[in-house]
Amino acid sequence: MKKFMDENFLLSTNTAQHLFHTYAEKTPILDYHCHINPREIAEDRRFDNITQVWLGADHYKWRFMRSCGVEEYYITGNASDKEKFMKWAEVLGKAIGNPLFHWSHLELQRYFDYHGYLNKNTAEEVWEICNNKLASSDMSARSLIKKSGVTLICTTDDPIDTLEWHDKIAADKSFDVQVLPAWRPDKAVYIEKADYTDYISKLSSVSGVKIDSFAALKEALKVRMAYFASKNCSVSDHGLEYVMYAPASDAELEAIFAKKLSGETVNREEELKFKTGCLLFLGREYCKLNWVMQLHYGVKRDNNKYMFDKIGPDTGYDCISNYTPSAQMADFLNALAETNELPKTILYSLTPVDNEAIGTILGCFQDSSAVAKIQQGSAWWFNDNKTGMENQMISLANLGNLSGFVGMLTDSRSFLSYTRHEYFRRIMCNLIGNLVENGEFPYDEAILGEIVKGISYYNAVRYFGFDL
Amino acid sequence: MKKFMDENFLLSTNTAQHLFHTYAEKTPILDYHCHINPREIAEDRRFDNITQVWLGADHYKWRFMRSCGVEEYYITGNASDKEKFMKWAEVLGKAIGNPLFHWSHLELQRYFDYHGYLNKNTAEEVWEICNNKLASSDMSARSLIKKSGVTLICTTDDPIDTLEWHDKIAADKSFDVQVLPAWRPDKAVYIEKADYTDYISKLSSVSGVKIDSFAALKEALKVRMAYFASKNCSVSDHGLEYVMYAPASDAELEAIFAKKLSGETVNREEELKFKTGCLLFLGREYCKLNWVMQLHYGVKRDNNKYMFDKIGPDTGYDCISNYTPSAQMADFLNALAETNELPKTILYSLTPVDNEAIGTILGCFQDSSAVAKIQQGSAWWFNDNKTGMENQMISLANLGNLSGFVGMLTDSRSFLSYTRHEYFRRIMCNLIGNLVENGEFPYDEAILGEIVKGISYYNAVRYFGFDL
Amino acid sequence: MKKFMDENFLLSTNTAQHLFHTYAEKTPILDYHCHINPREIAEDRRFDNITQVWLGADHYKWRFMRSCGVEEYYITGNASDKEKFMKWAEVLGKAIGNPLFHWSHLELQRYFDYHGYLNKNTAEEVWEICNNKLASSDMSARSLIKKSGVTLICTTDDPIDTLEWHDKIAADKSFDVQVLPAWRPDKAVYIEKADYTDYISKLSSVSGVKIDSFAALKEALKVRMAYFASKNCSVSDHGLEYVMYAPASDAELEAIFAKKLSGETVNREEELKFKTGCLLFLGREYCKLNWVMQLHYGVKRDNNKYMFDKIGPDTGYDCISNYTPSAQMADFLNALAETNELPKTILYSLTPVDNEAIGTILGCFQDSSAVAKIQQGSAWWFNDNKTGMENQMISLANLGNLSGFVGMLTDSRSFLSYTRHEYFRRIMCNLIGNLVENGEFPYDEAILGEIVKGISYYNAVRYFGFDL
Repeated sequence: MKKFMDENFLLSTNTAQHLFHTYAEKTPILDYHCHINPREIAEDRRFDNITQVWLGADHYKWRFMRSCGVEEYYITGNASDKEKFMKWAEVLGKAIGNPLFHWSHLELQRYFDYHGYLNKNTAEEVWEICNNKLASSDMSARSLIKKSGVTLICTTDDPIDTLEWHDKIAADKSFDVQVLPAWRPDKAVYIEKADYTDYISKLSSVSGVKIDSFAALKEALKVRMAYFASKNCSVSDHGLEYVMYAPASDAELEAIFAKKLSGETVNREEELKFKTGCLLFLGREYCKLNWVMQLHYGVKRDNNKYMFDKIGPDTGYDCISNYTPSAQMADFLNALAETNELPKTILYSLTPVDNEAIGTILGCFQDSSAVAKIQQGSAWWFNDNKTGMENQMISLANLGNLSGFVGMLTDSRSFLSYTRHEYFRRIMCNLIGNLVENGEFPYDEAILGEIVKGISYYNAVRYFGFDL
Repeated sequence: MKKFMDENFLLSTNTAQHLFHTYAEKTPILDYHCHINPREIAEDRRFDNITQVWLGADHYKWRFMRSCGVEEYYITGNASDKEKFMKWAEVLGKAIGNPLFHWSHLELQRYFDYHGYLNKNTAEEVWEICNNKLASSDMSARSLIKKSGVTLICTTDDPIDTLEWHDKIAADKSFDVQVLPAWRPDKAVYIEKADYTDYISKLSSVSGVKIDSFAALKEALKVRMAYFASKNCSVSDHGLEYVMYAPASDAELEAIFAKKLSGETVNREEELKFKTGCLLFLGREYCKLNWVMQLHYGVKRDNNKYMFDKIGPDTGYDCISNYTPSAQMADFLNALAETNELPKTILYSLTPVDNEAIGTILGCFQDSSAVAKIQQGSAWWFNDNKTGMENQMISLANLGNLSGFVGMLTDSRSFLSYTRHEYFRRIMCNLIGNLVENGEFPYDEAILGEIVKGISYYNAVRYFGFDL
Repeated sequence: MKKFMDENFLLSTNTAQHLFHTYAEKTPILDYHCHINPREIAEDRRFDNITQVWLGADHYKWRFMRSCGVEEYYITGNASDKEKFMKWAEVLGKAIGNPLFHWSHLELQRYFDYHGYLNKNTAEEVWEICNNKLASSDMSARSLIKKSGVTLICTTDDPIDTLEWHDKIAADKSFDVQVLPAWRPDKAVYIEKADYTDYISKLSSVSGVKIDSFAALKEALKVRMAYFASKNCSVSDHGLEYVMYAPASDAELEAIFAKKLSGETVNREEELKFKTGCLLFLGREYCKLNWVMQLHYGVKRDNNKYMFDKIGPDTGYDCISNYTPSAQMADFLNALAETNELPKTILYSLTPVDNEAIGTILGCFQDSSAVAKIQQGSAWWFNDNKTGMENQMISLANLGNLSGFVGMLTDSRSFLSYTRHEYFRRIMCNLIGNLVENGEFPYDEAILGEIVKGISYYNAVRYFGFDL
């Protein structure tokens, strides 16, 4: 029996252990997609207790607590931080097979030097250890980033954001980690939303472009993209139900936009056409700017209206949407490729059954402008676990170029989540180690080291073109 | 090489073996969903020979025989029981990797003390052994139930059923296993069927409610639900192509029902609206009654019309329907949750690729009214094998609370199928054992024992609220 | 650590090794589906260098090179054969986990006696070894076929093909491998294509039937089927987006066909009806002729218009289409079965998530006219790797009769691809060996040998009814 989460956690062979400890463990982290608030970095936020770090905004943990029958009072309600922690500890002790169990214990090991097993019996002890540790000087937001070996972070930002916190971080020479904005223009695309026109007003005002037509909307977005580019942004991101392709003429798009501005509701067909039109426009701009286009799709959000009305979005009530037609995604990418305007693109589907379809679509749009120009993103959100990561990498290896994979991102709001990179690297080294141990790939130290380091860090540096 | 199906069958590690033999093997069985005929229990049915038990109604076995090119004469035709058994033995001997191979041999081991390998060479010997054994006094329906360690059985019953056999069993103090009805109102929901109005007439007569409107149909169903509840029913069940959500007004539903009653055919849109309306009504009633709602979906039935005309339904001609939109299922559950009327619910999809989508939908509707209030049902029907069970539990563990899982049911018409609980428990203990052996969960005897016993039996006792 | 690709490659247990070396390794090959050009066999084609064999027409390799950022100049462009090979060697050296890595090295081992590892460092050496070897007398097309142990090949042929090369091969008594045509009438079915009427004219001329109606088209196809049958064809093949079922009357079908002949474009609904009508007609004819119907589906072709315009079809720009409704496939098969006109059928889906749905559909249409009459084809195209093959066989074993499986085909244009049969057999023996080693099936040498030899070769001989 292997020891519980020791230094060879998830590394089942000698080769895997060697590859991880030699090539992956100490390699820096490039976190090209997360939801950290840049203000918290700029202000070097500190935490009073472990509940603030762990349970303040983590809907993964909230969902698990609800699955265990914990009352909402102890989750997002008015219970004290300590009460919340005690409930969390109790349910975590039974979370066998759940990635939260591993993430939490990796964080306890790496940041709090606690190597036990958190459950109802150890909760009091862990509460003390963590809170004492959090009081020490090296546990602020910046300290956590530095000690995690992070060299660059991309946050997630709206076109109307000022990016002032990014400026402040960049201006502060005492902190040498790059914190760059990433462009997420969902609010400019979601024409079906009730507050869409309010958003358009704000975008008008921020961009200085009077948005009275779709052409003007595009102009305003270009102004803001130029602004983001001036802040070294080179990554965009979209959240989509699915990657749709419903082409329409400019005249149609103008009519749909005008209809919405006039206060009318657009129908589903108009919505799909408008979104397609926006994405095609944006994709072409990204290509010009040499930005990477990230498409996150396969999500149905805010499914529990009762709870949404109580506690709002991003509280743990989203699910997989299994309507993700591969034909439309291929047609969308083709529409950009046809005129040589397809940017570097990363595809993330929330439904893991799409792995192979994605893998075959990648292959239709690769070219020599970048190694693995079209990427399948690392196993995302609900798939961010050993099963999901293994399946994504096996599929990618079978159908494409695993050695060119840009690897892991945290997708997190927490400063402790960098251990997910370690989690990913262990799984990746184990998978590669197994291939070698089984005689499916030669034991060639040079190439294996290059592949492991590439997927851990260097592929992403090259792919995104960051100045590191 | 492990011995063929010995005491450590499917248990690949010491931890798995320890967990199974210590916590799972002797734990009782709660069979909360099966298709056993209660009359056979009431009358304590006996069997002349092994063909009657094994091949009389088992469409799994029939399908396999057809896959091997066996003539229908030896399957559902007029061949003698012995001829049928000989054909079955011959093909079973080649059924490598098929769960029937394991189920059959577990039954031979546990009920007939035969530890060999059934094939064409041993068929004669096994025929003798089984039939001799079946002649002994401890091989009646009740004896088989008792020696299997079953404490409670839920049958599957129609709203118009009298439940007389359940009464007789309950009245007989010599048999202390509870045999409770479960409510399966499919015939009241399937408005597209040609014989629907005939069924409505019967329901009118049994309920004493004149069903001349949808409101009256609901009233009649309430009368029958009260009757079922008086017989300690607390479980409902539905068979669906998919979990649809096509909401309609009361007026629309009345119009659709009136149309059908008048002899007209309802169209597909009307059918979906009517079924949605029925399910929403029933779900709300289940919530009031504190019943569990089971939704079995992803099925396309009676696909071979030629054979259907010859031998009818449930003869081995059903398949997976892969149209199972997760968005509609989420919307359906939300419609009940929005007014706090979502009952405890178990979701079973016949298509295994739905595992992860289901796992994410569960999480949107959990609350503190029960531990793991919304459950993913154990791998069902075509997935009721090692692959299917492992994938269902891995997905559930990754996305939710495996420790709260209500576990296995037989879904069978046979009194020998209780070994499927053993099969499930071996696979479950192996999976949990692997996590511990790999250092992914600590070896904590107390919590592991609690989890294994919970999934084997005690979670279901608590979840359904049975008086045991 | 196992040695890199030694004699026990992919065989992880003693049982697997024993089964492979005793029952699979030397068993002949029946290649019932490939895309080899019969002219190359008739003329006993020779190759100047390894690039001609490997990179002349292999879109799998082209895709992988593009995934690595190689310029098209070195893929399908004007670079020299040696330059192309050097680029290929460089990227192959990093192709960890990709089946191309294994296929290429198996070919190097078996045909070139090279047991090293091809990468940029060994490229020059391998280039020399291969080209020297190719110059020897035993490396012509026929020699490669003979030394691979092939007894029969089915090519892929159009109804208007003369089959002259098949005649020439058959007439040449110096070559005793049967090379038979297979009937692939896609061009007669694809009514949506711009050049459809041109094709119909050619078919008119070749068949001697004036095709001025759908009835006449059917007549012409019957004439050509009779011709193919006279050349010992017994296999048909179809390429489909999905297996659709949109039934229409004869009058409708005639109207659709007339519309197309008149120069009009048919709409999507008409296309689906016409294709359904064609497939039903052809299926019934296959049944009469006792031909096997192969349905390959789940493909979206020619997705990159920019590259299609440059280098045409079958150049590596196809992907999985994940719209493959199981309900329609079941209805289509039922329409043939209802009148007892369903031929032996092999279903191949390009989307691997269909495995279980297919497995359950098979079971609905099996009968005693053949062992495993309805087959799931071996993991196809993008799934033709260890993962895909294992999942296909596990699913088939769980849901049907693995022992009756007709096994592998090359689906290739290359004379070196026969090692894919070895690859498949290793994976199959490993899977069967694991079941035995785990105690899930008894170690019964006779039945295991029969199963392994059956899946390797003899099942296909029996199923297709070839005269061998």
